Amino acid sequence: MNIILSRDSQVRVMEDTVTNAEKSFGQFCSLLAAYTRKTARLRDTADQLVKQLISFANTENPEMRATLRNFAEDLAKVQDYRQAEVERLETKVVNPLKLYGMQIKQTRAEIKKFKSIRNNEIKQLKKLEKLRQKSPSDRQTIAETSMQRASVDASRTSHQLEETVDTFQKQKLKDIQKIFSDFVTIEMVFHAKAVEVYSSAFQTLESYDLEKDLEDFRAKMHRVYGRCDARPALMDTTLSPALPWSLAQSSQSTIQSQRKEAVSEDDSAEEDPVEDLRGQAQRLHQ
Amino acid sequence: MNIILSRDSQVRVMEDTVTNAEKSFGQFCSLLAAYTRKTARLRDTADQLVKQLISFANTENPEMRATLRNFAEDLAKVQDYRQAEVERLETKVVNPLKLYGMQIKQTRAEIKKFKSIRNNEIKQLKKLEKLRQKSPSDRQTIAETSMQRASVDASRTSHQLEETVDTFQKQKLKDIQKIFSDFVTIEMVFHAKAVEVYSSAFQTLESYDLEKDLEDFRAKMHRVYGRCDARPALMDTTLSPALPWSLAQSSQSTIQSQRKEAVSEDDSAEEDPVEDLRGQAQRLHQ
Repeated sequence: MNIILSRDSQVRVMEDTVTNAEKSFGQFCSLLAAYTRKTARLRDTADQLVKQLISFANTENPEMRATLRNFAEDLAKVQDYRQAEVERLETKVVNPLKLYGMQIKQTRAEIKKFKSIRNNEIKQLKKLEKLRQKSPSDRQTIAETSMQRASVDASRTSHQLEETVDTFQKQKLKDIQKIFSDFVTIEMVFHAKAVEVYSSAFQTLESYDLEKDLEDFRAKMHRVYGRCDARPALMDTTLSPALPWSLAQSSQSTIQSQRKEAVSEDDSAEEDPVEDLRGQAQRLHQ
Repeated sequence: MNIILSRDSQVRVMEDTVTNAEKSFGQFCSLLAAYTRKTARLRDTADQLVKQLISFANTENPEMRATLRNFAEDLAKVQDYRQAEVERLETKVVNPLKLYGMQIKQTRAEIKKFKSIRNNEIKQLKKLEKLRQKSPSDRQTIAETSMQRASVDASRTSHQLEETVDTFQKQKLKDIQKIFSDFVTIEMVFHAKAVEVYSSAFQTLESYDLEKDLEDFRAKMHRVYGRCDARPALMDTTLSPALPWSLAQSSQSTIQSQRKEAVSEDDSAEEDPVEDLRGQAQRLHQ
C-alpha cells in the first residue's frame, strides 16, 4: 500500500509542477506581451520622429536637407527592423506561451482523470482487503488474486499519471529553452541590424558640410535682398520712391557722397554688394 | 531705401528661420523625450521579466535553474545598458534640445530689439527725407549728410541683425548635427552592447542539458516515493497496515504470488523497484 501512498505525494509534486508552470508561464506570457507592446510603442514614437525629421528637412538648405533625409531614412529602417522584431516576438514568443497555457490546462485535466481513476482503484483495494481478512482460509487465495489484479490496475494508472507529468515536464523544459532562445535570437538580430544601420547614419551625419550649408543660407538671405530690389513694390508704397541709392550703398561704403547720383535699380548693379556682403558675412563667421 | 526694404524681407526670412527652428526643435524635444521615456518603460518591463525568471529558476532543477539564472543575469545586463542609454539620451539629446529652446527665445528677443531700433532709424530717415525735400538748395547738403549718417546707423543695425541670425543659424546647424550624432552614437553603443550580451545569453540557452534536467526531475519524483516509504505514517492511519507488500511490488512484477509473504517495509528492500521504475521511465521518455 505504501507505494500507493507515496504516489499521492508524487501526484502532489506533479500537480505543484503543473501549477507552478501555469502560474510562471502565465506571467512570462503577459510580461513578454508587454515587452512586445512597449517595443511597438517605441517604434511608433521613432516613426513620428522620422516624419518630423523629413518635414523639418524640407525647410532646410540642400546640404542639411539631404543629411536629415538620409538620417530619417536610416531611422525608418531601424523601425522596420523593430517592426519585424515585434512580429517575431508575437509569433515565436508570445503565441507559443499562450498555446502553452492551453497545453497546461489539458495536462491538468489528464492528471485529474488519472487521480479519479486511481482513487476508485484504491477504494476497490480497500474493499478487497476487508473481504480477504473476513474470508475463510480456503477462499483467501481467490481474494488475494483479486487484490493483486486490482493492485496491478492501480499501478498502471499511477504509471500513466507519471508518464503524463514526465511528458509535460520534458515539453516544458524544451519550450522554455526554445521560447527564450527564440527571444534572444530575435533581439540579437534586431540589435545587430540596428548597429549596422546606425553606423551608416553616423557616417551620414559626420559627412554633413556645415560651411557649405551656411553659404547657402547666406546666399538665400541675400537672394531675398536681390529679389526685393528686382521687385521694389514690396513695401515701397509706404515710403518715398525718391530716396537715393546711396542709402543702399552705405552698408559697405560708409559715406560715399560721390556715388549718390548713381541712382540705379537694375539687378546687375547689386551683384557686387551681394558678393561683398557674402564675403563679409563669411569672414565674420569663420 | 531698397536695401532697407529688402532687409524687411530678410528680417521676415530670419524670423521664419527662428520660428521654424523653435517649432521643430520643440517637437524634436518632445519626441525624443517620449522616445527616452518609452525606452525606460521597456527597461522596466524587462526588469520585471528578469525578476520573474529568477523566481521561476528557483523552483526548477539545478540544470534549468543555472541556465535561467545566467539568462536572467544577461537580460539584466542589457537593461543596465538600456539604463545608460536612457541617461545619455536625457543628458546629450533631450537636455540640449531644452536648452536650445531657451537659446531660441534669446535670439527672438535680440531680433525684436534690433527690429525696433531699425524701425526707429527708418522713421528718422523718412523725417530727414522730408526735411531734405523742403530745404532750400543751400541747406540740402547738410540734410543729405544727416541722412547718410542715419542710413549708416540703420545699416549697422541691419548688419547686427544679420549677424545675430547668421550666428543663430550656424549654431542651429551645428546643434542638429551634434544632437543627432549623439543620438545615433548612444543608440549604436547600446545596440552593440546588447548584441554582445545576447550572444552570450544564446550560448547559455544552447548549452542547456535537457536530459540531465529530466533525470533530476525523475529522481526527484522517485525521491518523494522513497521518502514516503521511509515515513509510512503519511496516510496509513486511514488504511489497514496489514496490506501485503505484494501490492507495492505488483507494479513491476505483475503477479508474483511467490513474493507475497515477503512483507517488508525497510528502505533497502525498495532500492530495486525505485531503480527499476527509474530505468523504466527513462526508457519510456527517451
